[in-house]
Amino acid sequence: MTWRIEVFIQLKEGVLDTQGKAVEHSLVSLGHTGLKRVKVGKYIQLWVDAPSADQARAEAEKMCADLLVNEIIEGYTLEVEAE
Amino acid sequence: MTWRIEVFIQLKEGVLDTQGKAVEHSLVSLGHTGLKRVKVGKYIQLWVDAPSADQARAEAEKMCADLLVNEIIEGYTLEVEAE
Repeated sequence: MTWRIEVFIQLKEGVLDTQGKAVEHSLVSLGHTGLKRVKVGKYIQLWVDAPSADQARAEAEKMCADLLVNEIIEGYTLEVEAE
Repeated sequence: MTWRIEVFIQLKEGVLDTQGKAVEHSLVSLGHTGLKRVKVGKYIQLWVDAPSADQARAEAEKMCADLLVNEIIEGYTLEVEAE
């Protein structure tokens, strides 16, 4: 069975988000004065063959640890759904 | 009132996702042989002052059109919640 896993990666609190700050300044200078803050992260979708949702989640967590996420500065959440 | 808006940006279907393909090949070569496909996109969070959720959404849609999204090759979805 194939599962679609959404991975939301963002910088941990306290890590300077230079890309977010740059986007924030650009948007405010374009007139979006109600904007208070911007954070920029990654949105990765994985399609994985696995016998169960739990196994798909475990496999995705291993992919995050192996390659996708730098756990020193980034945190992530996962959502698994049947494809 | 402050609203947190999550913006999920991804390449439209049919646009070559070179970053996704590179990640896919790396993960498969690391032994994740159950992986079928990867798509890489952006996850942007915006904190916006607005009188209502509808106005916060409208403001975020304008930010997407002004700067955040290249609507020729990218699509996006928004989720608005009270902060």
